[in-house]
Amino acid sequence: MITLHQARTLVAAAEAKADDLGIAVNIAILDGGGHLKAFSRMDGAVLGSIDVATRKATTAVLFNTRSEAIWEYCKPGAPAPGLELTNGGLAPFGGGIPLHDSRTNLVGAVGVSGGTVAQDVEIASAAVAAFIAKQETT
Amino acid sequence: MITLHQARTLVAAAEAKADDLGIAVNIAILDGGGHLKAFSRMDGAVLGSIDVATRKATTAVLFNTRSEAIWEYCKPGAPAPGLELTNGGLAPFGGGIPLHDSRTNLVGAVGVSGGTVAQDVEIASAAVAAFIAKQETT
Amino acid sequence: MITLHQARTLVAAAEAKADDLGIAVNIAILDGGGHLKAFSRMDGAVLGSIDVATRKATTAVLFNTRSEAIWEYCKPGAPAPGLELTNGGLAPFGGGIPLHDSRTNLVGAVGVSGGTVAQDVEIASAAVAAFIAKQETT
Amino acid sequence: MITLHQARTLVAAAEAKADDLGIAVNIAILDGGGHLKAFSRMDGAVLGSIDVATRKATTAVLFNTRSEAIWEYCKPGAPAPGLELTNGGLAPFGGGIPLHDSRTNLVGAVGVSGGTVAQDVEIASAAVAAFIAKQETT
Repeated sequence: MITLHQARTLVAAAEAKADDLGIAVNIAILDGGGHLKAFSRMDGAVLGSIDVATRKATTAVLFNTRSEAIWEYCKPGAPAPGLELTNGGLAPFGGGIPLHDSRTNLVGAVGVSGGTVAQDVEIASAAVAAFIAKQETT
Repeated sequence: MITLHQARTLVAAAEAKADDLGIAVNIAILDGGGHLKAFSRMDGAVLGSIDVATRKATTAVLFNTRSEAIWEYCKPGAPAPGLELTNGGLAPFGGGIPLHDSRTNLVGAVGVSGGTVAQDVEIASAAVAAFIAKQETT
Repeated sequence: MITLHQARTLVAAAEAKADDLGIAVNIAILDGGGHLKAFSRMDGAVLGSIDVATRKATTAVLFNTRSEAIWEYCKPGAPAPGLELTNGGLAPFGGGIPLHDSRTNLVGAVGVSGGTVAQDVEIASAAVAAFIAKQETT
Repeated sequence: MITLHQARTLVAAAEAKADDLGIAVNIAILDGGGHLKAFSRMDGAVLGSIDVATRKATTAVLFNTRSEAIWEYCKPGAPAPGLELTNGGLAPFGGGIPLHDSRTNLVGAVGVSGGTVAQDVEIASAAVAAFIAKQETT
């Protein structure tokens, strides 16, 4: 399972990237069971993104995949219409990324919301990169 | 109504087919009132499929039809837009199949989720085939 | 995390004890994140016990304690009135027991409902005893 | 409104006090509208306290009072039985404290859960003391 120390590494890297981009986002870190481990709302981030960030991370944990991958299953013409309505509502767009330990076990997820989807993905990716970098040095 | 013995026949056949396909799925067996009778999450099946498998089976019981048949009523241009939002949320795609006794009474449903929709349907169908085969020999 | 094989050991032991007592119960097995792993409703068990069994197990996972221990915090005169209303509703009475691995990590819980509370506790305890016995021999 | 910097001061002070007490807790910081600003689950804190910590803080914001004060309104014989069932469920016991700016405007709340109620109150109080100390020096 993810530690609070790891969660803070993720949050700090996400905030640094958001600062680089000049935007304010919400960042949710969940453990491998989908339970909240850490959360940070940067000053100025919109309130509606609290739920979106958390839901993106939940989507990533529940299906062990990047949140946008769900869209391939439920978009018009895809085989699972309405999949996004399951599990209390998924967020089938970018910004949620699962986290794995060195043995590829699912240990959590990060969810980012507040910028454009492309910015949210860039920020979440920066967080995951920092998480992996720390893993490799330990 | 379905018995626990019958529910186990369904689960075992579903698991055997999933093993054949080399995938891990969630299998939910409901009775004719839509209440959970048996459930099995194979090791490695994603967490998000717990709800999806159960919801497919619920959809099958509620409308006494295969879950994907609901899509014909609520897809774009169909006469009942939003039908999938009723009953707490339906799963209008393949993997849920109703179960009937020898007099065609609805006695339950099986719901499978964790593979592609086509795989889920194949697994649920194998479960129903085993259920029917047992019925005919008794 | 708990395996499906372990979950079945728990279910089988619970059913055997319920048979001994001459009653029918619902048995829910959750993983350490509170997600359903296996479920069995014995023939004749009341429908209302499906939710109660699951909720007892959820209570045991969420607070890493036997479900009845929650009552000490929320009973009249206790320091946390209303605690039972949190987390979507707890079941602060006997029948939910957490499961730990050999290193005392929380790996899941069993919840039993359908008999008297004393019977439910006896059945859940028999399940846990079988779970531990298998652990020791492996 | 509370800033992320202030939220971190609160979280750090709460964690330091929890460390002193040798326990692990969940800490939720909300803004004056009851929306999540920051959250931290210390390693080892029980999962059920995520919701309890958040709910205590919500209770403190919603009624601009310490969470335990709600109990005086809804306890047996008090004039508002069932008040604890409003607003999606309150937590009418200690551990939630509202936060005010230097002009006594409500700007947020801290909620702590994971120890005994007395410990949770002690930790939340330490967080508020650190929040006020910073306010006075600025």
